[in-house]
Amino acid sequence: MFDLYIANKNYSSWSLRPWVLLKALEIPFNEHLMPFEGGFGESHTTFKRFSPSGLVPCLVDSEHDVAVWDSLAIVEYAAEKHPNVWPEERAARAWARSASAEMHSGFGALRDECSMNCGVRVAMDELSPGLKSNLARLDALWQEGLARFGGPFLAGERFTAVDAFYAPVAFRIQTFNLPLSEASLAYVQRLLALPAMQDWYAAALKETWREPMHEAETVKHATLLSDERAIG
Amino acid sequence: MFDLYIANKNYSSWSLRPWVLLKALEIPFNEHLMPFEGGFGESHTTFKRFSPSGLVPCLVDSEHDVAVWDSLAIVEYAAEKHPNVWPEERAARAWARSASAEMHSGFGALRDECSMNCGVRVAMDELSPGLKSNLARLDALWQEGLARFGGPFLAGERFTAVDAFYAPVAFRIQTFNLPLSEASLAYVQRLLALPAMQDWYAAALKETWREPMHEAETVKHATLLSDERAIG
Repeated sequence: MFDLYIANKNYSSWSLRPWVLLKALEIPFNEHLMPFEGGFGESHTTFKRFSPSGLVPCLVDSEHDVAVWDSLAIVEYAAEKHPNVWPEERAARAWARSASAEMHSGFGALRDECSMNCGVRVAMDELSPGLKSNLARLDALWQEGLARFGGPFLAGERFTAVDAFYAPVAFRIQTFNLPLSEASLAYVQRLLALPAMQDWYAAALKETWREPMHEAETVKHATLLSDERAIG
Repeated sequence: MFDLYIANKNYSSWSLRPWVLLKALEIPFNEHLMPFEGGFGESHTTFKRFSPSGLVPCLVDSEHDVAVWDSLAIVEYAAEKHPNVWPEERAARAWARSASAEMHSGFGALRDECSMNCGVRVAMDELSPGLKSNLARLDALWQEGLARFGGPFLAGERFTAVDAFYAPVAFRIQTFNLPLSEASLAYVQRLLALPAMQDWYAAALKETWREPMHEAETVKHATLLSDERAIG
């Protein structure tokens, strides 16, 4: 059985990727939610007890004495045992891996300016040139995948790792009400409606811990409309 | 036969990763060097002719109508046909994938402050806190791999994809003369001495194209000591 270490569900976009993949594919695992103690997204001393980099997510496979400390590496590790992690067809699989890796290292403006904060809704003042460029690329990429492989998911009929890699983006788009094509917005709604995404969202709303810097970032270029989260 | 599209060898660290992997493993490919026309590291219109994201590296497998537009996705695509891309043993493979993915999305200060510029040697003024933190993590990671899997490469006896992912770092350490432990510096020398790395380096020195912003970045926090490159 896998052990998956993650951080706060309201904030931790990187944790969501492997979590939603394993849930959606019904791959069993023990969840260990480790709240960020101090700053968000930093390497934490206590996290080093289970994660070599001090970062989450980290998957531990005790049976084989293995720790996998990155979201994309976790996906590949799971794929070795579970072939349905990636699309079956070669070209769809290559596309899905490219798109996942592009998210893994790119979309900097989207990540910096619209960081994940599941339970909040804001109205953005104006989109920066970097964010506009990221959204144009995101829209082109999603539309290409949906059209080429026939939908309803990015690389075809089944939810695969590439959908898991863009799952945090669905929450960002919901929070910041970002403009995209009709086809892409329909895909966002499809992701948000998945039972695994609904479970994650419900748990995020119950969290009462707030990270001040992250909260300030959320409204840096935006006006707060509503906050659905529980009050501690 | 694979077609691999790369950019200028003196600057393009992301291109080096799949190039040096395929060369070191003697996997045949056609090289297409596409000079950056304008800014460095940007999405280029002409690059979109072969790369969906407009970024390099991009591997095209015409036989299967596949374009793979990210360095880590290229590695996984190659690994499907060539099992020696990753270590054979499960734990070493999981470690190698985690370490590669950590490089793929992390080490921001090292990448920003010490961008690859193969043919130049500089003396750095002072290391920023972010760069010091990156170097401490890099050193810990390399020493862990070399000790745990017995060397001389990061995940054992053979050069695998994780070494390819850190190959650009070897050129950065040479250019900026960055401080690391003896074991890590010996590993840098081992990488630099590989025939594939020597080939890349020789070709980089012959390039006469200069990207002004990249050149300015190189000496932003450093003093130029020497420039080994050909003059155009």
